[in-house]
Amino acid sequence: MTLKRTHTCGELTRKETGKEVVLNGWVDTRRDLGGVIFIDLRDRYGLTQVVFSPQDDEAAHTAADQLRSEFVIGVKGIVTDRDEENINPNVKTGDIEVRVKELTIYSKSETPPFEISDEVKTNEDLRLKYRYLDLRRPKMQHNMLLRSAIYQHTRNYFYGKQFAEIETPFLMRSTPEGARDYLVPSRVNPGKFYALPQSPQTYKQILMVSGMDRYFQIVKCFRDEDLRADRQPEFTQIDVEMSFVDEEGIYEVTEGLMQTILKETIGVSVDLPFPRMTYQDAIKTYGSDKPDTRFDMKFVDFSEIVAGSEFRVFSKTVEDGGAVIGFVVPEKGSLGRGVMDRLTKRAQDELGAGGLIYIKNNEDEVYSSVSKFVSEETTAEMVKKSNASKGDLILILAGAADTVYQQLGDLRLMVAKEYDMIDTSKNHLLWVTDFPLLEYDPEDGRYYAMHHPFTSPKQEDMDLLESDPGNVRARAYDLVMNGSEIGGGSIRIHDSDIQSHMFKALGISKEEAEKKFGFLLEAFRFGAPPHGGIALGLDRVAMLLTGAKSLREVIAFPKNQRAISLMDNCPNDVDTDQLEELHIKLAPGAGQKNA
Amino acid sequence: MTLKRTHTCGELTRKETGKEVVLNGWVDTRRDLGGVIFIDLRDRYGLTQVVFSPQDDEAAHTAADQLRSEFVIGVKGIVTDRDEENINPNVKTGDIEVRVKELTIYSKSETPPFEISDEVKTNEDLRLKYRYLDLRRPKMQHNMLLRSAIYQHTRNYFYGKQFAEIETPFLMRSTPEGARDYLVPSRVNPGKFYALPQSPQTYKQILMVSGMDRYFQIVKCFRDEDLRADRQPEFTQIDVEMSFVDEEGIYEVTEGLMQTILKETIGVSVDLPFPRMTYQDAIKTYGSDKPDTRFDMKFVDFSEIVAGSEFRVFSKTVEDGGAVIGFVVPEKGSLGRGVMDRLTKRAQDELGAGGLIYIKNNEDEVYSSVSKFVSEETTAEMVKKSNASKGDLILILAGAADTVYQQLGDLRLMVAKEYDMIDTSKNHLLWVTDFPLLEYDPEDGRYYAMHHPFTSPKQEDMDLLESDPGNVRARAYDLVMNGSEIGGGSIRIHDSDIQSHMFKALGISKEEAEKKFGFLLEAFRFGAPPHGGIALGLDRVAMLLTGAKSLREVIAFPKNQRAISLMDNCPNDVDTDQLEELHIKLAPGAGQKNA
Repeated sequence: MTLKRTHTCGELTRKETGKEVVLNGWVDTRRDLGGVIFIDLRDRYGLTQVVFSPQDDEAAHTAADQLRSEFVIGVKGIVTDRDEENINPNVKTGDIEVRVKELTIYSKSETPPFEISDEVKTNEDLRLKYRYLDLRRPKMQHNMLLRSAIYQHTRNYFYGKQFAEIETPFLMRSTPEGARDYLVPSRVNPGKFYALPQSPQTYKQILMVSGMDRYFQIVKCFRDEDLRADRQPEFTQIDVEMSFVDEEGIYEVTEGLMQTILKETIGVSVDLPFPRMTYQDAIKTYGSDKPDTRFDMKFVDFSEIVAGSEFRVFSKTVEDGGAVIGFVVPEKGSLGRGVMDRLTKRAQDELGAGGLIYIKNNEDEVYSSVSKFVSEETTAEMVKKSNASKGDLILILAGAADTVYQQLGDLRLMVAKEYDMIDTSKNHLLWVTDFPLLEYDPEDGRYYAMHHPFTSPKQEDMDLLESDPGNVRARAYDLVMNGSEIGGGSIRIHDSDIQSHMFKALGISKEEAEKKFGFLLEAFRFGAPPHGGIALGLDRVAMLLTGAKSLREVIAFPKNQRAISLMDNCPNDVDTDQLEELHIKLAPGAGQKNA
Repeated sequence: MTLKRTHTCGELTRKETGKEVVLNGWVDTRRDLGGVIFIDLRDRYGLTQVVFSPQDDEAAHTAADQLRSEFVIGVKGIVTDRDEENINPNVKTGDIEVRVKELTIYSKSETPPFEISDEVKTNEDLRLKYRYLDLRRPKMQHNMLLRSAIYQHTRNYFYGKQFAEIETPFLMRSTPEGARDYLVPSRVNPGKFYALPQSPQTYKQILMVSGMDRYFQIVKCFRDEDLRADRQPEFTQIDVEMSFVDEEGIYEVTEGLMQTILKETIGVSVDLPFPRMTYQDAIKTYGSDKPDTRFDMKFVDFSEIVAGSEFRVFSKTVEDGGAVIGFVVPEKGSLGRGVMDRLTKRAQDELGAGGLIYIKNNEDEVYSSVSKFVSEETTAEMVKKSNASKGDLILILAGAADTVYQQLGDLRLMVAKEYDMIDTSKNHLLWVTDFPLLEYDPEDGRYYAMHHPFTSPKQEDMDLLESDPGNVRARAYDLVMNGSEIGGGSIRIHDSDIQSHMFKALGISKEEAEKKFGFLLEAFRFGAPPHGGIALGLDRVAMLLTGAKSLREVIAFPKNQRAISLMDNCPNDVDTDQLEELHIKLAPGAGQKNA
C-alpha cells in the first residue's frame, strides 16, 4: 500500500520538528555510517535526509540495508533537528532529518546507465534513450517546470485580456504548396489525406471572420523538415490573432506578454515599449534581420571613402555597386598576427568571405593589413569614420552588398562569441519591422511571399505592387530576443481586391488561388474585419529563458536530428495489414532497408 | 485605416452619454426610418444601436445607405440617451444609441447563405460549409466562449495544485495493437511511420517514472473511428496523472476540478464528495455502467418471486440462470392499451427485447399484461416488492441476465425521455468503480484488458488472476455526469511481477510484451512510483454544460460523421509527387474513385 505522504521532500524545516511525517520519493544517495543509514530522499520538490537507525526501528533499519540508488520508497518517521555540525545551509530542508520508524519499498531499480546528476556529462543519445532517467536530473526538472510556468503565465495573460482560447484542427487540408507537410491517410476515405498543420494560420484568420475578435492558443505545429540542427518535427507555438488592430495593437499585447513571462518565470524586468528597427536598418547596421543588440559593434560603411582607392578590391567593389563595410572590435588592437590569420581563415572557411581586411588602431601605430595598397590618408579617414578608440580593431569586408552584409553580420557574432563580448545577463527584445513583402527566386524566375500570401503590403507601397514588387514593404514584423527570432506576424489582407493584386504579383492565377485557398477567399466575401496577429516560438522562448543550448533540453520527449525518438524508437515499421487498411503501399525500395 | 475602437459593442450605457466613441463590428440589422438609418452593430461582446441621420453627418448618412447585413464597419459618434419609448431593456446597451459622425466600411458582404441568428434552422451541412458564418451566431459564440472558460478554469485549478503542464509528443510509436491509429509516413525515414496518439497514456506514465509527480495537459487525441454518431476523429482530453496516490487521491482532485468548472462556467454548485457506485451495482440497479441518476426508477429483481411461476417465460428464465427484472414508472398506470402496445413494439424493435410485460397498479384494479398466466398472488407479491404506489406502472423484462439488464436500462432511458421525467436542471455526478479488469471475447477465445493492460487489479482479487480472470476487479473508475461517461482512469501497475501476471492473463508472451511496450517496461525497471490518473473528455463536458445536442456544437471546426471537414473539404487528394516524396503509393483502387 502507498503511504499517504504528509509532506514533499522539499518543505520540512524546524517548524515541523517533533512531528510524525510521511515522505515518498527516490533514493538519491545512501551512506552507511557505523550502522546508521543515511538516505537523501528526492522528489520533484527537493531532497530530505532520512535516517535509519536500529535505535529508532530495528525492522526499518534492516530493510534499509537493501536500498540502492533510484529505489522508490515511502517512509514514516519523526522530524528531528540535525546536530549543528550536520546542518546543510544549501538545502531548504538542511536543518532537519527524518528518523524513520516505517519503511515501504514501492519498487526497486537496476543500476541506471548514467548517474542522475547535473554534474555528470552523458552522451546525448543515451540520455534520449533513457529519457525518463534524464528527466529526473534537477536541471531537466527545472526546465520542465519553467516551461510549465511559461504556459501558465502566457495563458493567464491572455485570459485576462478577453482572448478566447480556441482549438483549431490538427487534421486539415493539404495544399499543393504544402511541401514539408506531414500527410495522414484516411482509412474511412480511401485515397484521401489530411495534413498536419504547419501553423493554424488559415483557421485563425477564419476565426476573425467568425467574429471571435481575439484568439489565442498554445498549439503544436508540424514540419517534415530536412534534417538540420535545432529543428524539431513538432514544435509549439503561442498563436495569436486580433481583429480591428494595426501593428501597434499587436506590439502592445505581445510586449505585455513577454514582460509578464520574463518577470514571472525568471524574475527579469524589461522596459516597454521594445525598440524597433526596420528590416533595412537591421541589415545595414548588423547584417542580420535578427540582430543581437546586447552588444554594439555596429557596421560602418566605408564605400564612399574608398570609392576612388588605388586598391582595386575596394574601388572595384564600389564601382560594381558592392559595399566595403566593417565594424570596430573594442580593445582588440593588440591581437597578434597568428590570431588574425586564424580569424581570416575562419571568415573564409565558415562564412565564405573572400578575405578579411583589418586595421589595428593602436596608440603606437595604426596598422592596416592592406597598407601596401591603401594610402595612410584613406586608412586614417576610415579610422575616423569608424569612431574607433585607440587600441581598437576594425574588421572590414568588401563584396556584393547582399553577401557582404550577411558575412559581416556572421563575423560580428563570431568575434563576439570568440572574445566573450556578449553580456548574457541582459535580455534585449527588439521589433524588426517593414520586411520586404516578396522575395525573388532567381531559379524559378518568380516572386514568393516572404511571410505568406495573406500578408498586407504597406499602404504607401501599394502602387509598387505591379511596377516594382521587390521593393514593396510588408506590414510584417518579427520579434527578436538576444539575436534569436522568437516570433513573427503581420497585418493581413482583408480586402479581396488587394488580395487579387497580391496573387497577380505572385504569378498565381485565379483558378490556382481558388484551388489552394478557396475556402479562405470565400470567407472574405462575407465580411472580413481588418485583422492581424503573431506567432511566438514557445520552444525557443523556453530555451532562451533556461539558457539551454538546444531545443531538446526544453522538450520532454524530443526527436533527435534524424527526426527519431530514441526512447520509443519511432518512426517505425508497420504491418502490411495496417497499410492495407489505410489504402496505401510502400513505394518500391522504401521498405527494403527496414526488412 | 482602422478606426481604433474605444469600446466594444457590449458595454456602452448612460455612463458614457455625451462621450465620443469608436465602435467596430458587423451590421446585424438595418432599418431605414424616414431618412434616418438605424443599424444594430454586432461584435463578440454584444449589440449597439448606431444611428445615421443627415442632421448629425450628411456624408456618413449618405454612405450608410449602402450598408447591408454582415458588412464590417467602424463608426465614430456620440453616445446619446434613447427616448423613453425606444429603450430596450433586454439588451445591456439598450438605454443608449450612438449618433454617427464618421463611418468607415472595412469590407462588404455578399448575402449570406443563411441568416446569422439562433432562431433560424439551417441544414447542418450548410452550417459546416460556411462555418465562419455559423460561428457568428450568438449561440455558437456562447459555446466557444464557454469552452474557452473551461480551459481557463481547468488550467488554473491544476496550476494552483502544483501540477506541471507538460506536452507529450503527437508523433509517436505505432503499436501493433494500434487499430484505429492514424499513421504518418516519415519523409526523412523512408518506409517508416509515426502514429498520432489515441491518448498520451504511455507518456504520462513515463512522466511519473521521471519524477514529475503531478502532470496535467489538455491535449488532442486521435482515433480513425468507424463512422458513427457523435465521435470526432480528433478529440480533446483533460489528461491527468499523479504519483503516490490511490483512488481517493484521484477522486479528490477530479471532484475539485468538476466543482470548479461547474461553478465558474455555469454557476452551478455541486456537493462533494460525489456518490460512488460499483460497476456491479450500477448494472444491477440501472442496467448501465453510466447510469443517469437524475431520476429514480431503480431496478427490482422479481426472479425469486416468479421462480416457480406457472408462467414458463418467468420460471424458465429463472431456471436457466436468467433474470426477471423491472422498474416502477411513477403515475403512468393510466396509460392506455394503444400506448402500451407501441411501447412494447419499440422495446422489441429498438432494444431487441423479446416482449414487454407490465403491471398497472391502479386504484381500481391491478392490471397485469400476463394475468392469464400469472396468478394474482404472484402479481401482488411483485407489486409489493416493487414498492409501487397506486397509479404507478411496472415494466418488466425477462431473459438472459447480461442482455436483459442492458435492455431494461435502455428501456428506462427511453421511458424517461418519452415522458419527460428527467430534471435537466440537475447535474448529477457519480463515480462508477470496481470495473472488471478483463473482458472475455468469445470470438477470439481470449481476454482483453477492459481499460488497458497497465490497469492494476484490486489487491484482494490478485489470486483470481489465473484461476478466474473474468471475476478480477480493476482499480479502475469512470466519472459519469447525467448519464454520460465524461472520464475514466485507473491506478496503474507499477510492479513488474504483477505486470507479468497481467500479460499472462491476457495471453501476451514476453516477446510480444517487449515488442509492444518495451520502453515502458524498461522504464519500470528503474524505479517506478505507485501512480494513477484519469482522462476527462473535454468535448463531452462542454456539450453537457452548454446543453448542446452534438459534439459538433462545441468544436470550432469539427468533422462531419464521414470524418470530412466540409469547410475546407478535407481529407483530399494529393499529388503523386507528394506521395513519392513520402515513399508511399496509393493501393490499387484507392485513388480511382477520386480521379
